[in-house]
Amino acid sequence: MATLGDIGVSALINILGAFAFLLAFALLRIQPINDRVYFPKWYISGGRTSPRQSRNFVGKFVNLNFWTYFTFLNWMPQAMKMSETEIITHAGLDSAVFLRIYTLGLKIFGPITIVALLVLIPMNVSGGTLFFLSKELVVSDIDKLSISNVHPKSIRFFAHISMEYLFTFWTCFMLFKEYDRVALMRLNFLASQRRRAEQFTVLVRNVPHVSGHSISDSVENFFKKNHPKHYLCHQAVYNANKFAKLVRKRERLQNWLDYNQLKFERHPDKRPTGKSGFLGLWGKRVDSIDFYKQQINDLDRRLAMERQKILKDPKYIMSAAFVSFDSRWGAAVCAQTQQSKNPTQWLTNWAPEPRDVYWKNLAIPFVSLSIRKLVISLSVFALVFFYMIPIAFVQSLANLEGLEKVAPFLRPLIEVKFIKSFLQGFLPGLALKIFLYILPTVLMIMSKIEGFVALSVLERKAAAKYYYFMLVNVFLGSIVTGTAFEQLHSFLHQSPTEIPRTIGVSIPMKATFFMTYIMVDGWAGIASEILRLKPLVIFHLKNMFLVKTERDREKAMNPGSVDFPETLPSLQLYFLLGIVYAVVTPILLPFILIFFAFAYLVYRHQIINVYNQQYESVAAFWPHVHSRIIASLLISQLLLLGLLSTKKAANSTPLLVALPILTLTFHKYCKNRFEPAFRKYPLEEAMAKDLDECNSEPDLNLTAFLTDAYLHPIFHSFEEVELTEVRFDKNQTHVPIMSVDGNNDHIPTPSSETSSPSPPHHYTYHYEDQPPHTIQQYEIEQQPYNVFHYGADSPSNVYHY
Amino acid sequence: MATLGDIGVSALINILGAFAFLLAFALLRIQPINDRVYFPKWYISGGRTSPRQSRNFVGKFVNLNFWTYFTFLNWMPQAMKMSETEIITHAGLDSAVFLRIYTLGLKIFGPITIVALLVLIPMNVSGGTLFFLSKELVVSDIDKLSISNVHPKSIRFFAHISMEYLFTFWTCFMLFKEYDRVALMRLNFLASQRRRAEQFTVLVRNVPHVSGHSISDSVENFFKKNHPKHYLCHQAVYNANKFAKLVRKRERLQNWLDYNQLKFERHPDKRPTGKSGFLGLWGKRVDSIDFYKQQINDLDRRLAMERQKILKDPKYIMSAAFVSFDSRWGAAVCAQTQQSKNPTQWLTNWAPEPRDVYWKNLAIPFVSLSIRKLVISLSVFALVFFYMIPIAFVQSLANLEGLEKVAPFLRPLIEVKFIKSFLQGFLPGLALKIFLYILPTVLMIMSKIEGFVALSVLERKAAAKYYYFMLVNVFLGSIVTGTAFEQLHSFLHQSPTEIPRTIGVSIPMKATFFMTYIMVDGWAGIASEILRLKPLVIFHLKNMFLVKTERDREKAMNPGSVDFPETLPSLQLYFLLGIVYAVVTPILLPFILIFFAFAYLVYRHQIINVYNQQYESVAAFWPHVHSRIIASLLISQLLLLGLLSTKKAANSTPLLVALPILTLTFHKYCKNRFEPAFRKYPLEEAMAKDLDECNSEPDLNLTAFLTDAYLHPIFHSFEEVELTEVRFDKNQTHVPIMSVDGNNDHIPTPSSETSSPSPPHHYTYHYEDQPPHTIQQYEIEQQPYNVFHYGADSPSNVYHY
Repeated sequence: MATLGDIGVSALINILGAFAFLLAFALLRIQPINDRVYFPKWYISGGRTSPRQSRNFVGKFVNLNFWTYFTFLNWMPQAMKMSETEIITHAGLDSAVFLRIYTLGLKIFGPITIVALLVLIPMNVSGGTLFFLSKELVVSDIDKLSISNVHPKSIRFFAHISMEYLFTFWTCFMLFKEYDRVALMRLNFLASQRRRAEQFTVLVRNVPHVSGHSISDSVENFFKKNHPKHYLCHQAVYNANKFAKLVRKRERLQNWLDYNQLKFERHPDKRPTGKSGFLGLWGKRVDSIDFYKQQINDLDRRLAMERQKILKDPKYIMSAAFVSFDSRWGAAVCAQTQQSKNPTQWLTNWAPEPRDVYWKNLAIPFVSLSIRKLVISLSVFALVFFYMIPIAFVQSLANLEGLEKVAPFLRPLIEVKFIKSFLQGFLPGLALKIFLYILPTVLMIMSKIEGFVALSVLERKAAAKYYYFMLVNVFLGSIVTGTAFEQLHSFLHQSPTEIPRTIGVSIPMKATFFMTYIMVDGWAGIASEILRLKPLVIFHLKNMFLVKTERDREKAMNPGSVDFPETLPSLQLYFLLGIVYAVVTPILLPFILIFFAFAYLVYRHQIINVYNQQYESVAAFWPHVHSRIIASLLISQLLLLGLLSTKKAANSTPLLVALPILTLTFHKYCKNRFEPAFRKYPLEEAMAKDLDECNSEPDLNLTAFLTDAYLHPIFHSFEEVELTEVRFDKNQTHVPIMSVDGNNDHIPTPSSETSSPSPPHHYTYHYEDQPPHTIQQYEIEQQPYNVFHYGADSPSNVYHY
Repeated sequence: MATLGDIGVSALINILGAFAFLLAFALLRIQPINDRVYFPKWYISGGRTSPRQSRNFVGKFVNLNFWTYFTFLNWMPQAMKMSETEIITHAGLDSAVFLRIYTLGLKIFGPITIVALLVLIPMNVSGGTLFFLSKELVVSDIDKLSISNVHPKSIRFFAHISMEYLFTFWTCFMLFKEYDRVALMRLNFLASQRRRAEQFTVLVRNVPHVSGHSISDSVENFFKKNHPKHYLCHQAVYNANKFAKLVRKRERLQNWLDYNQLKFERHPDKRPTGKSGFLGLWGKRVDSIDFYKQQINDLDRRLAMERQKILKDPKYIMSAAFVSFDSRWGAAVCAQTQQSKNPTQWLTNWAPEPRDVYWKNLAIPFVSLSIRKLVISLSVFALVFFYMIPIAFVQSLANLEGLEKVAPFLRPLIEVKFIKSFLQGFLPGLALKIFLYILPTVLMIMSKIEGFVALSVLERKAAAKYYYFMLVNVFLGSIVTGTAFEQLHSFLHQSPTEIPRTIGVSIPMKATFFMTYIMVDGWAGIASEILRLKPLVIFHLKNMFLVKTERDREKAMNPGSVDFPETLPSLQLYFLLGIVYAVVTPILLPFILIFFAFAYLVYRHQIINVYNQQYESVAAFWPHVHSRIIASLLISQLLLLGLLSTKKAANSTPLLVALPILTLTFHKYCKNRFEPAFRKYPLEEAMAKDLDECNSEPDLNLTAFLTDAYLHPIFHSFEEVELTEVRFDKNQTHVPIMSVDGNNDHIPTPSSETSSPSPPHHYTYHYEDQPPHTIQQYEIEQQPYNVFHYGADSPSNVYHY
């Protein structure tokens, strides 16, 4: 166990590491060449143009204004300047509420830290068991500040118990205030939004097949009959997964074509060539530009055929539909009621935002959903508790002997002493590191298999799975030695009262470990977050090989969203650590406080300058944050109960029993009081907004507004972002076979309040040997979906045969 | 442990006991004097008139037709004659579905019994451990037929495990079919019902207080605004609990007056007198008839005042209302949606039937409800696990020494040897017996405190509590020795895998106990159910002292409803026993089968001839029945797992682990698939019925139909049945101060489909010194509520000053 000095050294190293990251960030961010990596949000919102236009050649790439190097920490006050209201308009409610989690951490742990340090530390230090025992036991200095230092049977435990009560009440009070506030913010946000398609639309799933009727007819009949006064129109959902695959392939080919054309431009003396086989590794040598053009042409023909098939063959219509109503009231009613006698048919739910829909999962039938849920639950359980088994297996294979067997030609190299020792240290951990790196992706795929239909829900579910993994493998796994599987086994064979005791006893001993963890993962990790090393490299690579125009460059910067599936669970882990150690080893609290403060600054900066949320779930993740903190409270209470029972504090321990019951009651009350605001839409609100709109715009044509809102991805873009990179630039005059029909000069102002498509721009392709296609393209960053019209779906299309 | 012979003797005794009850029933039921006790349902439905009118004097009381004595078992085929559809029309869907629980038991356990007896018993008998061990252990013959007889590590356990799989699948299959059928029956019943008030009405609770507006105004404004096209009218709810108390008091006084008047009629030479003090034990002697008349007059004055206060003082209006809509669709929408931003206000739910409402609980605010729920949950937990503590305490007081101390004058009596030994045997058990007798009442009071607003829900919740009590104290308590508290303590200190093992091992040993239990509680208990000893005595007592007219007699027979809070949990206990013992000791199954068959016959007879349901919940209890049987399956699987793990059947035991997971998945699927049919009302159905009605009755005045449906009990009767006994008979000419205004000759035909009040009959009182009151009285048995109009609420009232 570490002494205070050790912790000090560790803290120093990590602080230096964090400063190194910050310094690197400060240096990189003021270079004009990196401007798009560190300020993409401003480019997207139109508030910033490239700083590279107005400088001389060197100034385009390197910042020559040396004064700015001395003010390298000024991003911090800048990040604090924007008010919360401005953040909501600038980045959406999700981001603003995400930041509130950090302030909630500060609000909870700030006062707790002060009280704990002032009251509990003196109490523990003067308790003094460990001073007497120090000859026999090697005890760290940290332990002198913790509850371990208090005599068994001491009357001082009453202080710890009353502190646990106090901290629980304080945490609950802050949680209640925060839930209240967030629920209000959500309702206000919803109320202040302008007309949006999802306010009028309900997603209907499991439409039953009636022989002799198409799905569209069934939907039309059903809703005309059962919502006669409110039904407006509906949009069918097509199974276009194969089509989407082809479009992605076309996209890849287009990238290669662009790359080769760029190469040709730069060296006009030499036409680029490549091999036609797999990955360009073999096959006969061909002219690359001609080859990719040919390939794209072929693909376009297949796309056209596939599209015809989808539209004509009723097999491709899924048993789901987006049904729109003439009022928010009508949609709210339909979303909240049961439609059919058979509760597994005609399932209605609020439609997600158009950009939030995960189309692939729309056609999963009800029975399959239950089975999927079961299978995934079991898999997550297995993953959490048994993930070490396959990794140990891979590790046993990935040793040097195995490597030598598989690749005997490497033997001379491996036998070099330096390389051998490096590999021996590196290989065993490799499988685990790869596993941990791909874990979030795996969890996301699991959530997708589970069948949720909105990206926001998928991210929340992946976050929940990640949280369970962290809880068992990081928190419990660090406290109780052995793998999660061994823990599970021993827990199954222990009595329920024994488990908190086993864990509780180890808790104070692991305080130093968690301090180091907070410094490495929390402090240094957050500092590396602001550096954005990976996006920086990717941007410059793309910039070098693919970017031809300013628009291409904009696409290359792709800032992404806040990574909820990873950040939310780790945040919740910090809450857990803080709450558990608040009474046991209060000296850990300042570390957590610093983490919350620093991470708040960093994410505030990132949200203002970098991230561009893919969807707006209107803080739908808050109930999860709330209930995980409640769970942390319960865990801390049980563990303290276990810890105290080993301290023979028989007089005081029973006093703690009431606390979990009170906490659970509080949770239940909050659930009843606030959660409906996140799940349902009150009719009162719907009616108020309807009336409001009716007064302000009495002769609004809602049908026109709604017709195309949930246009299927066969006409729109697909859920994959890649498609949005299908690029047809207005200035693309060097591509001779394309002529631009339409004006694309203006960059629309960001309109986060409206999701209606902005006026489309038409591009017409002239292919010599195939029917032409019209591409309607919207500004992808402002407008989250590209319309990709193929063929005769709009009167303004131009045909050239 | 008992041998097969012991069980045989016990069975014989119980069968004889059951036959004695049946014989007594057969003899009593054909006596004309008891006709109203054994066939009240037919009197109520108008299908039977008193058999006493057409006979000679002796024949009025005793059956002289000796032939009928020989056919004393003919009630059994008679009970089977009626079809299920007829039972639904005759007694309602609740009763018909209640009977289906018994047939479900037969369907599940019939095939299981045959298979288990044919496959498992030979397997167990030839297993033969116990034959070898018999010298050391005293083992019962029953154990030779059970799983205990199989060698440890035997391969035969695969047979038991496959049987457990088979039985689980069979049970789930039957459960699925039955749930499907019951859900369909429920929907068909709802669809076939004629217009009923509750179809159009929603109960709104937690109406917020707005200063300057009355609750009525708030409700009117809110629903006019948010349901403009569908809102029709609403009825306020008054806090009339004090008024109800006064009415009950008046009722008691009226009974005394009737009693004395009857006494006077029989002995006209002597006016009855009594003492005016407490219970007539002291005070000055007064003329009873005058005294009670005076008391009733005083009370009437107080009633009038109280009524004025309730109607005028807004404090008496509760923050709840019954809101009616112009269509079933409108009501279905309102009941299923969230109304207000604050989800704890404007809570909407389907209104229960008017006769099902428990008015007292309508005004409980939301916060109080959560606290009540917590307190009652804790109390139920304490009651289930610690009920022995107060009883042991009372027992320690209620010994002979204590009795002698309290009442020294009894000492000579107590010291008599015979009496002493009797008391010593009797006293200790007395407290426990009294506790078990009042337990259902206590649980009902707990449910009332919890705040449910419908009698049907109250009964279901009381049944759930009773089930937990039986599960812990009858099932577990009989298997594991010691009190429930001791069990709880030992379970908390055992590992989770140890508990099923501890219980599992004891299971086969307790088979004989449960066989006896089934015979005593099941067979003999059901036979005593049909005898109706308590109602028989009460009816004859009432008949002797209070009945003056034929109408009085009809009221005295008060058949009551099926006692769901007691019968449902004990039924579920039998399912549990059957499922647990099916694999372990299959010889127990025939006992259960006989119980189900016999109880089915008895309850079919009772439902046809005796019970008159107080409300119609349309089989709302089915989801509970279903999930309790699923719980039984899970318990049986866990216990078998524990039992086998002690048998060292390490190869076969892991095969069982999948079973609980599959069972839970099945449960979840059923919950999704069928439960909404019991909780929500699909819009499709609502719309279909609305359209139907619109076509058949285009110019229906719905407002008139609904205005009085949920008239508050201040105008109607109260929830207490006692009030319905306020009797003013049309033929009551010997009560000089009353004159009857209205015709009460006809007995309305039963109209279970309509809940609209039948034309009221007016009675006018002439009091010399106070304003008159008008009592509207309906036929209480056909029409479940008496209208008790006080004062000027109807234009047809007649005033005589």
